[in-house]
Amino acid sequence: MMNHYPSSLKNLIKNFARLPGIGQKTAERLAMHVLRAPESEARQLAESLVALKGSIKLCTRCFALSDSDVCHICDDPARDATIVCVVEQPADMAAIEKSGAFKGCYHILQGVLSPMDGIGPDKIRISELVKRAKDGAVKEIILATSTSVEGEATASYLSNILEKHPVEVTRIASGVPIGGDLKYVDQVTLKRAMENRNAV
Amino acid sequence: MMNHYPSSLKNLIKNFARLPGIGQKTAERLAMHVLRAPESEARQLAESLVALKGSIKLCTRCFALSDSDVCHICDDPARDATIVCVVEQPADMAAIEKSGAFKGCYHILQGVLSPMDGIGPDKIRISELVKRAKDGAVKEIILATSTSVEGEATASYLSNILEKHPVEVTRIASGVPIGGDLKYVDQVTLKRAMENRNAV
Repeated sequence: MMNHYPSSLKNLIKNFARLPGIGQKTAERLAMHVLRAPESEARQLAESLVALKGSIKLCTRCFALSDSDVCHICDDPARDATIVCVVEQPADMAAIEKSGAFKGCYHILQGVLSPMDGIGPDKIRISELVKRAKDGAVKEIILATSTSVEGEATASYLSNILEKHPVEVTRIASGVPIGGDLKYVDQVTLKRAMENRNAV
Repeated sequence: MMNHYPSSLKNLIKNFARLPGIGQKTAERLAMHVLRAPESEARQLAESLVALKGSIKLCTRCFALSDSDVCHICDDPARDATIVCVVEQPADMAAIEKSGAFKGCYHILQGVLSPMDGIGPDKIRISELVKRAKDGAVKEIILATSTSVEGEATASYLSNILEKHPVEVTRIASGVPIGGDLKYVDQVTLKRAMENRNAV
């Protein structure tokens, strides 16, 4: 279908189709929308794409995405800097922030251990976490990596390493999601929920 | 979730989310991808967005999207200019071109009659079609608007108007799609397929 479009349109379709989860048809639909939409809309999207790469830094303390050297959470005196929640990605931190359940600080690993993809301990921010555990300011480290195979392996690796340091290491609870119908919950989750059962 | 991202990232997410079919979560995922991807990828997408608006014109004869004043189909002497296929949108033309079933020229209405949305005959390229019908160079006009309510109404409106001019007006066939299982075909389509049955 592409051959019947002018080259500038083909070019935009190609670039949209490189985004994750955007196939050829969706890319065409998006490009057609841009064509019809006011020029300001296309220009704003273009400008925000270029601006992003220029302005985003990683917080030097927790490696969260930030506009400045230290992110707004690390910089906030109301946050409890003695509790550090370790997550894989910035989006995980955003999800926990949205829940409002946590008032400490974060450490964003910027990835997860995955030997198959060549991601070892030196590729993610583990040495920086160990340094934070060592200097005595942190009392508890909550491992909130995901419950995937890689996430569990990373949590297990981290708890082994952090054991040697004067810090309490905990793992977020796993079990049946709230509002979940038991018959639709997978067996591994059910098994975990049974093992981790609590007194009521 | 948005409040926990730096402003340049929030800005890109907002602009992605303005595209059709892109919700908040998808916009976040796309922005996160751009953040991780090489800068050249973001820049190329940004440049193609801006370039599109600057370079795309409508063919002065058929109103197809074009890099030049007359599109490559109208400009091609191998195409039969005496048969004109009327479609709603550039994407419809691209679909017909892809099928390879048509070697004539096109007329892109750039929309469909829709009184509910305030789109009357003067808002789409109907007067230009009538002008092409009048000047005698066109022998047949194939109405290939879609089979939606608006598409059918537009086809019916056009056939009434074109009746007065020295041109044969036809409508693309509608019926059961090829490869379609009869039991999954809707009743309106089945009724139409029965009415339009052919001798074998």
